[in-house]
Amino acid sequence: MRISVLGGDERSVKLANLLQEDGNHIDLFGFDNLKVDGLKISENLDLAIEKSNIVIGPLPCSKDNILLNTPLYSKEIKIEEIFNKMNSNQVFIGGKISNEISNIAKHYNIDTVDFLKREEMAVLNAIPTAEGAIQVAMEKMEITIHGSNIMILGFGRIGKILAKMLQGIGANVYIEARNYSDLAWVSTYGYNPIHLSEMKDYLQEMNVVFNTIPSMILNEEMLLKLNKECLVVDLASIPGGVDFKRAEELGINTVWALGLPGKVAPMTAARIMKDTIYNIIGELEE
Amino acid sequence: MRISVLGGDERSVKLANLLQEDGNHIDLFGFDNLKVDGLKISENLDLAIEKSNIVIGPLPCSKDNILLNTPLYSKEIKIEEIFNKMNSNQVFIGGKISNEISNIAKHYNIDTVDFLKREEMAVLNAIPTAEGAIQVAMEKMEITIHGSNIMILGFGRIGKILAKMLQGIGANVYIEARNYSDLAWVSTYGYNPIHLSEMKDYLQEMNVVFNTIPSMILNEEMLLKLNKECLVVDLASIPGGVDFKRAEELGINTVWALGLPGKVAPMTAARIMKDTIYNIIGELEE
Amino acid sequence: MRISVLGGDERSVKLANLLQEDGNHIDLFGFDNLKVDGLKISENLDLAIEKSNIVIGPLPCSKDNILLNTPLYSKEIKIEEIFNKMNSNQVFIGGKISNEISNIAKHYNIDTVDFLKREEMAVLNAIPTAEGAIQVAMEKMEITIHGSNIMILGFGRIGKILAKMLQGIGANVYIEARNYSDLAWVSTYGYNPIHLSEMKDYLQEMNVVFNTIPSMILNEEMLLKLNKECLVVDLASIPGGVDFKRAEELGINTVWALGLPGKVAPMTAARIMKDTIYNIIGELEE
Amino acid sequence: MRISVLGGDERSVKLANLLQEDGNHIDLFGFDNLKVDGLKISENLDLAIEKSNIVIGPLPCSKDNILLNTPLYSKEIKIEEIFNKMNSNQVFIGGKISNEISNIAKHYNIDTVDFLKREEMAVLNAIPTAEGAIQVAMEKMEITIHGSNIMILGFGRIGKILAKMLQGIGANVYIEARNYSDLAWVSTYGYNPIHLSEMKDYLQEMNVVFNTIPSMILNEEMLLKLNKECLVVDLASIPGGVDFKRAEELGINTVWALGLPGKVAPMTAARIMKDTIYNIIGELEE
Repeated sequence: MRISVLGGDERSVKLANLLQEDGNHIDLFGFDNLKVDGLKISENLDLAIEKSNIVIGPLPCSKDNILLNTPLYSKEIKIEEIFNKMNSNQVFIGGKISNEISNIAKHYNIDTVDFLKREEMAVLNAIPTAEGAIQVAMEKMEITIHGSNIMILGFGRIGKILAKMLQGIGANVYIEARNYSDLAWVSTYGYNPIHLSEMKDYLQEMNVVFNTIPSMILNEEMLLKLNKECLVVDLASIPGGVDFKRAEELGINTVWALGLPGKVAPMTAARIMKDTIYNIIGELEE
Repeated sequence: MRISVLGGDERSVKLANLLQEDGNHIDLFGFDNLKVDGLKISENLDLAIEKSNIVIGPLPCSKDNILLNTPLYSKEIKIEEIFNKMNSNQVFIGGKISNEISNIAKHYNIDTVDFLKREEMAVLNAIPTAEGAIQVAMEKMEITIHGSNIMILGFGRIGKILAKMLQGIGANVYIEARNYSDLAWVSTYGYNPIHLSEMKDYLQEMNVVFNTIPSMILNEEMLLKLNKECLVVDLASIPGGVDFKRAEELGINTVWALGLPGKVAPMTAARIMKDTIYNIIGELEE
Repeated sequence: MRISVLGGDERSVKLANLLQEDGNHIDLFGFDNLKVDGLKISENLDLAIEKSNIVIGPLPCSKDNILLNTPLYSKEIKIEEIFNKMNSNQVFIGGKISNEISNIAKHYNIDTVDFLKREEMAVLNAIPTAEGAIQVAMEKMEITIHGSNIMILGFGRIGKILAKMLQGIGANVYIEARNYSDLAWVSTYGYNPIHLSEMKDYLQEMNVVFNTIPSMILNEEMLLKLNKECLVVDLASIPGGVDFKRAEELGINTVWALGLPGKVAPMTAARIMKDTIYNIIGELEE
Repeated sequence: MRISVLGGDERSVKLANLLQEDGNHIDLFGFDNLKVDGLKISENLDLAIEKSNIVIGPLPCSKDNILLNTPLYSKEIKIEEIFNKMNSNQVFIGGKISNEISNIAKHYNIDTVDFLKREEMAVLNAIPTAEGAIQVAMEKMEITIHGSNIMILGFGRIGKILAKMLQGIGANVYIEARNYSDLAWVSTYGYNPIHLSEMKDYLQEMNVVFNTIPSMILNEEMLLKLNKECLVVDLASIPGGVDFKRAEELGINTVWALGLPGKVAPMTAARIMKDTIYNIIGELEE
């Protein structure tokens, strides 16, 4: 196949590389001076797009719904320009495609697929996120994870995988959740189930709290229950789940760790993107 | 509280016992000569029902939608009779309440709650089911589970818990599933993901296959792929997922293991029922 | 190679079968009417021994140091007779070769190797022993292993493997040991370390106690600390570690489970014997 | 008790702090300007030693057998001076007490105990070592540990604990060992056993190799078998087990990670020292 890779961070470069290793022809654009064996940057956006079957955008696609997200490029690319140059046989695959972007695509009659709406990608991305969270905690802690009391707020994808890894290292894992069936699963997996209403009684004993819930859960009341040595790592996307200002005033060590897959394991992140692209292509062909 | 326990197997007796230990007053009916310390059987159904807050029926409630399921009782109790004797302040909690039974209850203006529609009970019941499945396999196998190749068909509640336990004992676990996100979860947990379409290529190497899917999946084509030493344990409720007749002709060792919680761990099963009853009562009171 | 297999239980038959499948020529003696495809019983002991390179005896070899252990044979074979018929180029491999037997062998100038002195065999045999112990417990318990409090007395081979499996199923595992380094290992593996001196404070809470120490540890004082529902499984060889008589008087459910590998997983037991024989042969050839 | 803490790195400071929190009186010497609440540095060595029951030296005690190891002190302390000022009722506890140091102590009639000869300390120290090794690998790798092929050379204390943690995170773990009983243990724990003689056949597929063996095992022949992306982390003390010079020429990414407990988890390291000191004191008192 012939695939365009437009913009993005190091993951997009690695993705292009992996796709090429599999025998695809890659058209690359939106990067300055790459030094990757065998990958060549197209002369202009037209040439990068015109012959390809699939156009891959970055993850996330854009930060303002106007410009393509191109952290490795010194110039700008408008998203509308891309859709304008594409034809209706081509498909655009990118991450976090907003309604605004989606509407522009529809105007030009271009089909789009959002990476992040693919359940398998979200599941697999939770692996590097969880490992990155563990790495962050290891770097900040004066004690080992083994033997620590660690609470995870939320038992979704990241919560489940993070819990398994922490238990695998030897932590005492506590999971805060809200409903009985989640808590039943928690005890099934051998973690300590903590109902939201009991959470405040356990915070004092924790060495680390990881939050995965994107709404204010570690508010002032809860922060006051923590001991001063406790590390707080927030993994939730904006607006996060921690009152960071109050935490700072209280002298609590907090980290808001976002975008971990691309930072801690860009090659794994690129492989997950690649596998998902193949799944998408397989389904488009059906 | 005052709670009636009507009919059922050994689990219901243990449930009554546990409820009494917690300080509830128990009215028991639908059993012959029980010898359980402190539990007394009511003289008749009226006395067993009239003063209680909650009426607990068996699991399952009935096998024919007419008679209460009373394996430890030499006479018969009609379900309609129970609802007739109840008043509308009382609630009936039982297992597998069919539409027919539900309609009778409505006729008498009685609220019913089905155990099996409680997600937390279904999750927790998967624990004794999985242990029972392992016990059955251990009893039938000439080799250890440790080091065996074991495939589980389906990755629902029982599949997930069974996989975790088998891996914990040291088996090589293969999970058959149909969609990409389930398979992503499977690899996340460190099991071998097998897409339905690849299943037949792996059956030859299996020492045990556990089925959890209640539709014909181990049909003749698949049975022919198994090696002769492979044990098949079907955990799926009626109609099951194995062509048992063809399996027998082929000399394949099969077991259809149903109702495991009550058989292998009646006390655990009773505790799960008790916890679920408390959750139900808590929600009714809100 | 040409290998004699003399006497023993079902494991020896399976061992002969496995050795034959690998292309060895097997001479069999000490069994009545076997119905195993392709295995033939020699006409007499002379023919069974004279041409083979290796003579495999049972596990254990003998119960009285005089007769070969032949549970599947209606007649008797004297051990001395075997050594008498062997020549000094042949090696005798068997289990539990006592000093008496060893001396007889020396008298006839025959080299012997004892299975049970092979560390790798002892380690691998702990796997079917641990699984068998779990099966026994599952069959006797009214509750699941998952969620149970289980104490293991001793942290040797069986203790280590049993602990890992029980934790894998979801038990809360407590390990009694005597020295600081063992207890350090116990906490390293995530089990609860219990020093011998604290043991009596924990017994009340246990649902199962597995003993692996072959000396009286569960004496009257300790048995009195157990709750009445607790199951005791003794895995220690003679003299065991439980005051069984007193336990019975106290109404405590006890099982003395010996020889588990041959009983619960004879094929695995035979494979372990086979692998060990090959290791022995490899070292003899060096 | 009254305890002197002389010299050492951050661990020694934390150790002093923990000992003080337990109610002991601490005499501190061999540090410049510490800012730790409540800990005061003695005016001179005489005052630091004269009234204490136990004198704690650093880990390691010395690098040249003459001077005390004092990385947080701008002046020098001679080891002989310490023993000279001690009386024979006091005991000196330190790490890596060489024969030379031991002889000096004997000359002054002082008893010494070496931390590192305490088996429980060596076991417990393997926990922060293993976590530190994982942190190092996470920081250097572009892929996740989950799903990686990782070989550990050696199955001693660090090998065992590192293997368990890596498996807990989701790696495919391979263990190289030399003797059959170690390899039996390896397969018992569910890792892939690799005999030294087979090692070279597996290196090509590895993403990380951790060495724990303090003798040249990753020599040129083995390094040539590695793929270029493989990370090598050497945890073995001097002389290490990697031909670092050749590795660099081959462009293989290597890290020699020593003294990890003090670096990555100084508080855990200090707690392990404290617990061991209490064990030693307990045994001295018997």
